[in-house]
Amino acid sequence: MTSLYSQDISGIFSAACGAGGLPEAGFDAVCGEAWAALQRLRREHAEGAPLMRHAFRDEDLPAIEAAARNLSGRGSRILAIGTGGSSLGARTLCATAPARRTIFVENADPDTVARTAASDIAGSAFLAVSKSGATAETLAVFAQYWAAAADALGPAEAAARFLVVTGPQESPLRRLARRHGIEILDHEPDVVGRMAILANVGLLPAAIDGVDVRAVRAGARSVAEQALSAPAAADCPPALGAAMQVALMRERGARASILMPYADRLAEFSLWYCQLWAESLGKAGCGSMPYPALGMVDQHSQLQFWLDGPPVGVYTIVDLPPAEAPPLRFDESGLDWLDGRTLGELMAAAAQSTARILEQNGRPVRRIRLSAARVDAEAVGALAMHFMLETALAGYMLGVDPYSQPAVDAGKALMRDFLSKSGER
Amino acid sequence: MTSLYSQDISGIFSAACGAGGLPEAGFDAVCGEAWAALQRLRREHAEGAPLMRHAFRDEDLPAIEAAARNLSGRGSRILAIGTGGSSLGARTLCATAPARRTIFVENADPDTVARTAASDIAGSAFLAVSKSGATAETLAVFAQYWAAAADALGPAEAAARFLVVTGPQESPLRRLARRHGIEILDHEPDVVGRMAILANVGLLPAAIDGVDVRAVRAGARSVAEQALSAPAAADCPPALGAAMQVALMRERGARASILMPYADRLAEFSLWYCQLWAESLGKAGCGSMPYPALGMVDQHSQLQFWLDGPPVGVYTIVDLPPAEAPPLRFDESGLDWLDGRTLGELMAAAAQSTARILEQNGRPVRRIRLSAARVDAEAVGALAMHFMLETALAGYMLGVDPYSQPAVDAGKALMRDFLSKSGER
Repeated sequence: MTSLYSQDISGIFSAACGAGGLPEAGFDAVCGEAWAALQRLRREHAEGAPLMRHAFRDEDLPAIEAAARNLSGRGSRILAIGTGGSSLGARTLCATAPARRTIFVENADPDTVARTAASDIAGSAFLAVSKSGATAETLAVFAQYWAAAADALGPAEAAARFLVVTGPQESPLRRLARRHGIEILDHEPDVVGRMAILANVGLLPAAIDGVDVRAVRAGARSVAEQALSAPAAADCPPALGAAMQVALMRERGARASILMPYADRLAEFSLWYCQLWAESLGKAGCGSMPYPALGMVDQHSQLQFWLDGPPVGVYTIVDLPPAEAPPLRFDESGLDWLDGRTLGELMAAAAQSTARILEQNGRPVRRIRLSAARVDAEAVGALAMHFMLETALAGYMLGVDPYSQPAVDAGKALMRDFLSKSGER
Repeated sequence: MTSLYSQDISGIFSAACGAGGLPEAGFDAVCGEAWAALQRLRREHAEGAPLMRHAFRDEDLPAIEAAARNLSGRGSRILAIGTGGSSLGARTLCATAPARRTIFVENADPDTVARTAASDIAGSAFLAVSKSGATAETLAVFAQYWAAAADALGPAEAAARFLVVTGPQESPLRRLARRHGIEILDHEPDVVGRMAILANVGLLPAAIDGVDVRAVRAGARSVAEQALSAPAAADCPPALGAAMQVALMRERGARASILMPYADRLAEFSLWYCQLWAESLGKAGCGSMPYPALGMVDQHSQLQFWLDGPPVGVYTIVDLPPAEAPPLRFDESGLDWLDGRTLGELMAAAAQSTARILEQNGRPVRRIRLSAARVDAEAVGALAMHFMLETALAGYMLGVDPYSQPAVDAGKALMRDFLSKSGER
């Protein structure tokens, strides 16, 4: 298949962005490191590692599609309970749906839960996702919705409205689901949440919202195949991306990775990326701070700081070719530059000018352009695989384990402690 | 009136967070600078400066409320066209509404515009906001909606469905509105967009969505009054906040300001803050990178990086006291810590434990707690005034003009140039 996107890293070199950029001379060495990391990824893939597994799998899709159809038939809206890796991948995919039915309830905010529980419980179905089965807010929100649904519909009908996705080990969520007679799908135990976008965690809500989940996998597969077969790092965009990120961290002190897609349908993709990048690499003093920007919107919010504040890191601008569309018509003086153009041309010109002005101000810029004029399921699958590979490769190069998140567990223990004490007031 | 929130900066000192924090010893000096900056703000306010103007004004409210009623009566949904300072303040306020009718169209994304224009144009009314009257995406989206509405309803009825807010100077948007017979409200020329949340720009959509705009102003007034009368910087929370931010930038190299409210209703407030902080201070190498976090959600996304990645800056955790609510009931083993608690208690315990664990990992933390158990119009007005004052004071202390955004204009010229050329394909 032809490539679903192209990547241009010329804007990260000092020829484009001056002293803020990398000298071209030393880049071969870091590409060599990326190549070694890619070899490791290939070995691990051959041994069954999960990162690219779902790109080459389709035998699990009928079960996912059947579960989606079943839950879809039980309610006109789906309340999806889960957070982090249990929501952001699914949101990324659902953003490409023609119409959205799944409402993601990611927080334990009492106001949000009360509002959603008060409106149309009888027309709702529920999906609860937690790999550990012990996530406090997922359990708490599940309990509130369960109580409301069981009260309104009776326990048997309520149970038919719920579906749980959780790891196969014993857990509070699994025990609750079993006791209530709720169907359970397994979260694959070796798939980390932030990299589960292509597994049932991501695909189930997408299928509910009408996204072509086979196209998502096909898009991811095209990137994975290239990663498995490329003869050099320079022929593998995720490896080049990892090389660029690591070199800018080391040689230019890059502290941030700003992702700025010029498409509303990629706004939630930016949020998914921010978890992926932060949680995978933020270990032992490594990593850089992601930022979920959106073009053109953040030109009117963050651009002043990016251009004239202290240099913070590297910018990734994602855009797409303008679709055919009726042109805008203005016969006002002073608007001849806009007359006859389309919204898509405006977005593309904004992406191009923002990239250029960032470079002119000494900021390194990587550009990614989708091949299609629309952000579809296939393109998002490709972008997801690109950034999962880039992140894992960067982790290998930095010497951190991209698949763990050890620091957050201490906070959870502390929270339980505070919560126990809050009851003793 | 009693204070609508409290601020606790003890977590920014090395006694709480070790080497990442400030020594208490030198903090008096920077508080002295904040005090001098506050004196300047007071002088400017006495001379008519706009920053606190709307907190003490109510004679403009009847006109805003009447315009809101009028536009509300013309459509069941309101499409609000505008971006940056023309949308984020309004979104912040609308997030406290019992139900939202205003849909913010901030981007020139052809997909979004086509989707919204295709559905129910006949049931829509339109608000277009641009201070300059020359914002490319606002003009372009306005033109698309105008064409669709004029086509569906005829130009006279379409004109009655539109309202424009723009600066009093001649501009393309003003000329278009005049030619179509659309009502125009003036954007006050000396109010910068990101600080216009209390002006008609922010209040009009809020009033449309049913927010008590007088309560917004009252909340802001309580903070402004304190800023005008406090006998020392230590008695003025925004001055203390500015002192803290500036000291951490200078002495600990803080590069980021992470805002993490534990309430869904403050998620859009975080976006507004990110523009305010970035665009006001990001000049001449000054400023720090804001991040729009949301508690508890970002505990499952960013916390690993915050705890174990490189230190990036200062964390502001905003929470509220738990409301009275029916307790959660679990009789599962292993869930006794959650049994009998409420969602609000869970959120508060999460905020407390996240603050503590950040401090334990050497990260400076400021805490803000609302006095009410609900994020209402008054509380948001108070927070908005707090952060506008803190930002302006920090600008004065850093020696940058917090009311300008000079760097973004070069990008706009470049975009027009690219756009003109894109038509020559």
